[in-house]
Amino acid sequence: MCEDGGILTYSFIVSIARKTGLSDPEGATTHKALTDLGFTGVSMVAFGRTISIDVEAMSQDEARSQVEAMCAKLLANPVMETYHIEPAS
Amino acid sequence: MCEDGGILTYSFIVSIARKTGLSDPEGATTHKALTDLGFTGVSMVAFGRTISIDVEAMSQDEARSQVEAMCAKLLANPVMETYHIEPAS
Repeated sequence: MCEDGGILTYSFIVSIARKTGLSDPEGATTHKALTDLGFTGVSMVAFGRTISIDVEAMSQDEARSQVEAMCAKLLANPVMETYHIEPAS
Repeated sequence: MCEDGGILTYSFIVSIARKTGLSDPEGATTHKALTDLGFTGVSMVAFGRTISIDVEAMSQDEARSQVEAMCAKLLANPVMETYHIEPAS
């Protein structure tokens, strides 16, 4: 977070995961590979992705609502994915 | 976490990110796309991935060391990536 004439930079992390019930071929393949490597105790593997975003805005709320709009327009696929936005620590 | 004759299931989340200084073409492309969409306040976009893993083990420590070994052997690329393991909440 750095000051620049009233505009601050806010950092967020967007966590995106597939909706429950949708197949996760990457997870299934990795689960099998881990079992083949001898990790027989693995019972579930699921992949997700994170996007770190810095946004310049007048307030935390304005920055967050911009990130919400980015998720809805570009970052996440609302048909298949859920997303969660949190401020970066 | 479910009991099964002394063996418990432990859940972890592995967060994997590129090492600092490595190029992130996915992030750069997304940054450009967001700017083109009108989100001109975006100053940084970086992609990472998360892997959720359930492991059956006798203890949390044993489960965690298994996940450490999985990261070293398969899940992360130690040349280009850093990883962080935490218990799933």
